[in-house]
Amino acid sequence: MDSVAGLRSRLREFAAARDWEQYHTPRNLAMALSGEAGELIAELQWLDDDRIKAALAEGPLRERLADEAADVLLYLVRLADVCGIDVIDAAYAKIERNETRFPPTV
Amino acid sequence: MDSVAGLRSRLREFAAARDWEQYHTPRNLAMALSGEAGELIAELQWLDDDRIKAALAEGPLRERLADEAADVLLYLVRLADVCGIDVIDAAYAKIERNETRFPPTV
Amino acid sequence: MDSVAGLRSRLREFAAARDWEQYHTPRNLAMALSGEAGELIAELQWLDDDRIKAALAEGPLRERLADEAADVLLYLVRLADVCGIDVIDAAYAKIERNETRFPPTV
Amino acid sequence: MDSVAGLRSRLREFAAARDWEQYHTPRNLAMALSGEAGELIAELQWLDDDRIKAALAEGPLRERLADEAADVLLYLVRLADVCGIDVIDAAYAKIERNETRFPPTV
Repeated sequence: MDSVAGLRSRLREFAAARDWEQYHTPRNLAMALSGEAGELIAELQWLDDDRIKAALAEGPLRERLADEAADVLLYLVRLADVCGIDVIDAAYAKIERNETRFPPTV
Repeated sequence: MDSVAGLRSRLREFAAARDWEQYHTPRNLAMALSGEAGELIAELQWLDDDRIKAALAEGPLRERLADEAADVLLYLVRLADVCGIDVIDAAYAKIERNETRFPPTV
Repeated sequence: MDSVAGLRSRLREFAAARDWEQYHTPRNLAMALSGEAGELIAELQWLDDDRIKAALAEGPLRERLADEAADVLLYLVRLADVCGIDVIDAAYAKIERNETRFPPTV
Repeated sequence: MDSVAGLRSRLREFAAARDWEQYHTPRNLAMALSGEAGELIAELQWLDDDRIKAALAEGPLRERLADEAADVLLYLVRLADVCGIDVIDAAYAKIERNETRFPPTV
């Protein structure tokens, strides 16, 4: 199964089983997404590119980033679902527009 | 094919064909993700839940949100890729932890 | 007069004269602040530190950053006001805590 | 003294006394600001307006918001300083433009 469709189903069940659908409004989910994007960027705010490269090889930073990236993805998938948006379709459409807008140079 | 894996390949080719890999550092991509999350939330900042529900049914708001959600997803997928993170795996792992952490109530 | 207090008064009058107080809820203002922080970071997302230093000296980047920084400050001052928060007092209290938490090393 | 100018001086001394000026680049500070804006919004993400109003009256939410608002202000003031921006001047200039752009209706 399409991996994002799988997450979407799982999140629907998760919310239904906890009676949390009432909290999953577009605004609340966009705020939660924004908060998680903030946590993700906070992991990188004082490190230069070389330190990040080294830290990603060691593991702990990668795990923290993976955890924050997962939170962003989960709220994004749930937000798209409650808004009736197919975010994968939208992403492919956006790539196609960008491919036209920025012609290859190499 | 897994939809996020498809986006990841497409974004790799996109960056390579424009010699943009040099700009796709974890920090730059996290900043771009944060900027797009900001654009997404800006679409909802002055609307109440009822207005959003009505506006989503009409279409234009849904299209703008789909466009912003796509940008967030694209930068997230690219960021995960350059960091060596499997964001889908990380998302399933996070759902599992949340299912344990918050037992079903319904 | 204290400069932030001056901005606070001006923003109160601005909102009252447009009947916008109804929109200035803590949530809406926090979302607007988040959107503006996203616009600010977007100005810097693809530039390295040397390019930023050079661009700040030339002027246009500094003007765009000043404009975005102003938006962040205005929403922050207004948010604090509607929440009954004295953000200047809170900032001095925070500096004092940080001075204790991180002893000087130089 | 102007309150923001006071914070600016205090933050300069704070950074100098810890040899942290090297970390206070425009990009790092913009990332830190974005992270703090995320923490601020996270305080409000699941609460409706009535709950927030009641919670602000009780105190603990107001203290947490004050703390996050302080962090946003401190990073904003420091960012403006390292970029050579007078954020108070920029904020007044922005209010003036907004007063023209959105004529009073009341």
